Amino acid sequence: MPTILLFGAGKSATSLIDYLADSCGDRSRKLLVADIDTALAAAKLKGRVHTETVPVDLEQEDSRQQLIRQADVVISMLPAGLHPILAADCLKLGVHFFTASYESEALRAMKQEIDAKGLLFLNECGLDPGIDHLSALKIIHEAQSRGEVVRSFKSYCGGLLAPESEDNPWKYKFTWNPRNVVLAGQGMSKFLEHGEVKLVPYQQLFKRVETIHFPGLGDFDGYPNRDSLNYQAIYGLEQVDTLLRGTLRRAGFCKAWDVFVQLGMTDDTASLQLPNGSTYRQFFNTFLPWSDQLSVEEKLAELIPELDFPTFEKLQWLGFFESKLLPRTEGSPAQLLQAILEEQWALQPADRDLIVMQHQFEIQTQTGIKKVTSSLVDVGQDAVYTAMAKTVGLPLAIAVDLFLKGEISLRGLQLPVVPELYLPILDALEKEGIRFEERVVD
Amino acid sequence: MPTILLFGAGKSATSLIDYLADSCGDRSRKLLVADIDTALAAAKLKGRVHTETVPVDLEQEDSRQQLIRQADVVISMLPAGLHPILAADCLKLGVHFFTASYESEALRAMKQEIDAKGLLFLNECGLDPGIDHLSALKIIHEAQSRGEVVRSFKSYCGGLLAPESEDNPWKYKFTWNPRNVVLAGQGMSKFLEHGEVKLVPYQQLFKRVETIHFPGLGDFDGYPNRDSLNYQAIYGLEQVDTLLRGTLRRAGFCKAWDVFVQLGMTDDTASLQLPNGSTYRQFFNTFLPWSDQLSVEEKLAELIPELDFPTFEKLQWLGFFESKLLPRTEGSPAQLLQAILEEQWALQPADRDLIVMQHQFEIQTQTGIKKVTSSLVDVGQDAVYTAMAKTVGLPLAIAVDLFLKGEISLRGLQLPVVPELYLPILDALEKEGIRFEERVVD
Repeated sequence: MPTILLFGAGKSATSLIDYLADSCGDRSRKLLVADIDTALAAAKLKGRVHTETVPVDLEQEDSRQQLIRQADVVISMLPAGLHPILAADCLKLGVHFFTASYESEALRAMKQEIDAKGLLFLNECGLDPGIDHLSALKIIHEAQSRGEVVRSFKSYCGGLLAPESEDNPWKYKFTWNPRNVVLAGQGMSKFLEHGEVKLVPYQQLFKRVETIHFPGLGDFDGYPNRDSLNYQAIYGLEQVDTLLRGTLRRAGFCKAWDVFVQLGMTDDTASLQLPNGSTYRQFFNTFLPWSDQLSVEEKLAELIPELDFPTFEKLQWLGFFESKLLPRTEGSPAQLLQAILEEQWALQPADRDLIVMQHQFEIQTQTGIKKVTSSLVDVGQDAVYTAMAKTVGLPLAIAVDLFLKGEISLRGLQLPVVPELYLPILDALEKEGIRFEERVVD
Repeated sequence: MPTILLFGAGKSATSLIDYLADSCGDRSRKLLVADIDTALAAAKLKGRVHTETVPVDLEQEDSRQQLIRQADVVISMLPAGLHPILAADCLKLGVHFFTASYESEALRAMKQEIDAKGLLFLNECGLDPGIDHLSALKIIHEAQSRGEVVRSFKSYCGGLLAPESEDNPWKYKFTWNPRNVVLAGQGMSKFLEHGEVKLVPYQQLFKRVETIHFPGLGDFDGYPNRDSLNYQAIYGLEQVDTLLRGTLRRAGFCKAWDVFVQLGMTDDTASLQLPNGSTYRQFFNTFLPWSDQLSVEEKLAELIPELDFPTFEKLQWLGFFESKLLPRTEGSPAQLLQAILEEQWALQPADRDLIVMQHQFEIQTQTGIKKVTSSLVDVGQDAVYTAMAKTVGLPLAIAVDLFLKGEISLRGLQLPVVPELYLPILDALEKEGIRFEERVVD
């Protein structure tokens, strides 16, 4: 019986597990879910036929490889830093390997051997990266097949809240890895704009946002995400003048988040040891100049001249001006900030999350420039069945399902940027209610 | 004959070589200078008795260790990253080791073995770190011996230009490693102010400067340098409320340098490949938003609202608004910026540099708070005999001289923070004209 081995049964794995577990009976497949928390895994498997949980200690090479040896396909939903360990095992043992994470240098170094062994290692098959590739490449390839030229491509994605759950001034709660949210954007962002390469450092990133509109949902802040130029060759966009991948937050979020960036509160390099009993206010004050006259609020206003009321309100709502005890007093500023935000931005059981994605194309046709907007909106059911888990997990689950059905013959180190992958995955996603709306302005 | 082996005959080694080479005859010592550029080393040795140049390839372990085996003391004036290699050789071969660089983790890992072998490994014995330690600890220990308590200690140092050589609006030229100048301040700075730990991130560092006055020289900008708290225990300042080590630039420099920081031009992580023939103006524009209406100057003014004329003038003087060819088009932003600055900020043969250092103490005596300011000013002779080379090299040369005369019995991994080291080195520095001026206000 073909066996799928999934590492990680966390938040983002819920829909992935459902999709694969539901069909194990019909398709005579086995699904093994390896997680340190076997109770969590079991709760998600709900005893479906041919499904099983297995405990795992990733540091035990022997037991890890013994597990992988039983599998035909390994899916990793673990933190991206752990993928190379599993990938190396899969390579050694001749097992196919699937993730929703960015293709890493470590994986690229295995390329030749993956090819030689005739294995499929598919990365970036989640939401972003993932669904963005699928849907963008369909439009790009269709335009190119008509002899049209894509002049401009901008793509934005965000994991946010359905309007009814936007019950704090940030209009934000954590729907995925909080650490990644806190560290998002560090380093230099790079993109192409009207033929000019543009670099935006972290300290400018949340200031230089674009407003992105979704019909029926309103406005969002979009900021550039990493090195957009990485995708120029992969997307076959050598003739493009503008190329930008971006992240979405609710309008106003970025201006307030920028206060943390400017003050250094998202730094993950320094180490703080605040006395036990330190407060939110004292933590915040660590990043402000000393004064014998000005209050924390006054010092902040002096340091950040563009501070407006909506921004102040967001900081105040988080409790930074209160003498509230810190949940964590030792660690990097980013770790202390994350602990605070995890208290304040926790998704409540009935909260519904929101996934928004928008591609904006300018395509040169024989008659002029055609503007195409393609938007995806998906709303979660609750804090377990999130839109995030659905949109991250389903593309991966579908890819594995198609692969085991023998409908994917591609091998090697791949991204879902070829029709053989994106067409059937998009079709299957549509059946699950994940569908882009296209608008064309000629 | 006792043998000193010096690695590195570059800019900062000139005075060190003179001091040690001059006394080789009288004191029956040998000085070997190892540098890839043996002609440079020979020019600095000027054929003095018992001195010799030796070629060196640091990657050849055998020849490196054969060289070190001949020595009693090794001095490294190489880039700090290379010290651990030489230190490991010295440890293996039982040779004493001296540098002017910060004590690194790699050296700390050798501590036990250094002790066990009865060797002296002395670091931070240059200018900053170096002279700052010597002079500060003399004052601190004297106060403590009178039963006084140091409440506040701030120490600033800068390598700048004598007023007659300040012939550009930055009032700055390179007198030491340009790469270190370009990357200075990255990461988080940490200090103690009135009992509060303060963190200042890079993006705030050049905005939150203090004005430091030197009688007869005028005003300087002082900004915090790395983690000042590292020195609290080493200096025996457990009872201090304010502790800050800082770097000095001429007044106005920091505000203009902050434009590079805010724009991301000092980033060393991204890689740029600008077309051949790219100009200073195009490089600058890479960090500005695209616009079909605004000029580079207008976009800059919009992005940096606090931009004033003195700042604009500094950028203009460097040529950033001109269509001048870039000296380098590929590399990190910091590397491209450095190449530009090396063209514009080159020290001219007749230029005289300036070293300024100031300690500011607030000491609690039996009658109240005593304010003590201790300042050092040293002016170079020309672009070879710089104040930088003198103040970096002489403390190290003196330490080695004292050691070989048997006047230092201390062994182990050390900093010049104990009287046995700082008292005789300060005495000898005074004979070379390096002397602090103290001012006391009760």
